[in-house]
Amino acid sequence: MKMESNTHWIDEVKNGSRYGLKGEIIVQKKSKFQEIIIIKTESHGNALMLDGCWMTSDKEEKYYHECLVHPAMSSFEAASRILIIGGGDGGTARECLKYQGISQIDLVEIDREVIDLSKKYLPQIGQNSWSDEKLQVNICDGFTWVKETKDQYYDIIFIDCSDPCTISDKLYSSEFYNECKRIIRKDGIIATQSESPESFETLHIQIRNSFKKTFNKSLTLYSFVPFYPSGIWSWTFASDNKKQFLHPKYKNIKEIEKSCDIWNLNYQEGGFKMTPNKILKALD
Amino acid sequence: MKMESNTHWIDEVKNGSRYGLKGEIIVQKKSKFQEIIIIKTESHGNALMLDGCWMTSDKEEKYYHECLVHPAMSSFEAASRILIIGGGDGGTARECLKYQGISQIDLVEIDREVIDLSKKYLPQIGQNSWSDEKLQVNICDGFTWVKETKDQYYDIIFIDCSDPCTISDKLYSSEFYNECKRIIRKDGIIATQSESPESFETLHIQIRNSFKKTFNKSLTLYSFVPFYPSGIWSWTFASDNKKQFLHPKYKNIKEIEKSCDIWNLNYQEGGFKMTPNKILKALD
Repeated sequence: MKMESNTHWIDEVKNGSRYGLKGEIIVQKKSKFQEIIIIKTESHGNALMLDGCWMTSDKEEKYYHECLVHPAMSSFEAASRILIIGGGDGGTARECLKYQGISQIDLVEIDREVIDLSKKYLPQIGQNSWSDEKLQVNICDGFTWVKETKDQYYDIIFIDCSDPCTISDKLYSSEFYNECKRIIRKDGIIATQSESPESFETLHIQIRNSFKKTFNKSLTLYSFVPFYPSGIWSWTFASDNKKQFLHPKYKNIKEIEKSCDIWNLNYQEGGFKMTPNKILKALD
Repeated sequence: MKMESNTHWIDEVKNGSRYGLKGEIIVQKKSKFQEIIIIKTESHGNALMLDGCWMTSDKEEKYYHECLVHPAMSSFEAASRILIIGGGDGGTARECLKYQGISQIDLVEIDREVIDLSKKYLPQIGQNSWSDEKLQVNICDGFTWVKETKDQYYDIIFIDCSDPCTISDKLYSSEFYNECKRIIRKDGIIATQSESPESFETLHIQIRNSFKKTFNKSLTLYSFVPFYPSGIWSWTFASDNKKQFLHPKYKNIKEIEKSCDIWNLNYQEGGFKMTPNKILKALD
């Protein structure tokens, strides 16, 4: 095999376990904010790692993006203004752009390098979202962006950020969630990745409890991201009105379902029931 | 740290990815059937690997055993005769023995070494099941055992075996499933681990299709086993009568739920809905 000589195992190490992909490193650099590695693999396509953590790969990105986007998007007849905090690989924007009625997507990513490298090395993820005139890319800190947004501006906010660290810590604070609440419309939804109940149990419970305290209604969907620590992942959805993310309203949802590899309405309904018993016992 | 000098990364490698645990090897031997490794870890307790594949660990075994056992056991008022094919770590027997009404559990394990080593190094998994007089341990090939069992003998058969290989290949055949069908009672249930829809996609689909062909009713539950390849795992349940595994009948089910770390009735209901869309499209 031609690739063999340059291939290495690249691992994410977490709490005495590791998950590795075998591939050739094609990018390794420090941006202003983080260490970025992109590897080319035979098994998983290209894969992106930030500060030692797997972020996305061609093979597995749909497990993540479909579960973040569709429970929120499908519960509007036509969501119009969308905010994506993070999401520099373009996958969240791509899934949103399947829906009609969108007037504007603001993608707010702190690290321009992530976007530039994703466009170049992970083009299957963002696809033609990058050239869609509805998508506005803003290189900016998400916290600042939200602070400076006027009241009741967005229909949906997607918090599509990395695990807590220097640059993303603020995105896990009650202050941030309250600001998000301020800038969504009356029927608006906040959707966030909410970590693994196994590998990040404390943080996961903290996010669920914060959401419960901040919003009238919140619910967590459990599903899979094979190359994140433990493979179990979660996404939490909140609204100040009702649990509208349980009741799909979008008319052409059958078309959306057909386009998906992982998500469908039945799958979503199941995922909302799968709180592991030990997490149920530990929640406030 | 005292342990540090003897610790190594031990990985299961599968399709260009690997999942490793860091620990000290305390057993490494070849039995008549397979290579057995047991490692002691700080993060996951003790863990068992057979022929290079993770089988069980103190920390994560409940993800597997609770999802195999409870959907089947809870759907009887009182299941009486149980067959476990494999299950040499004792976890499946332990979960079964939480239920009243059992008269007999036949555990049929081909490799005596797995049982002996599990009793010694993974005592938290089998617990006091090993000394329960209802549990009969038989060191025997599962296929032969089933062949020699008389018609309609068991209420439930648990197929708790390793991935297909020399010793377990036959346990994935239509011939075997038909023999299982012959030896269960009219309302009986067959429950099997049915691999990962991501890492063993072809085999997983083959098991689902075989079950559908062999039994009147079958249904697959998806859930998590963090240290199996991809973290996504599945268990398939079948009955010739009705989908009774959707309708719990056991009266003291609240007590069973309380004892569980992962499973509860709501979780089970969710798991039965989570067929990934691409698998749905690929099934017969």
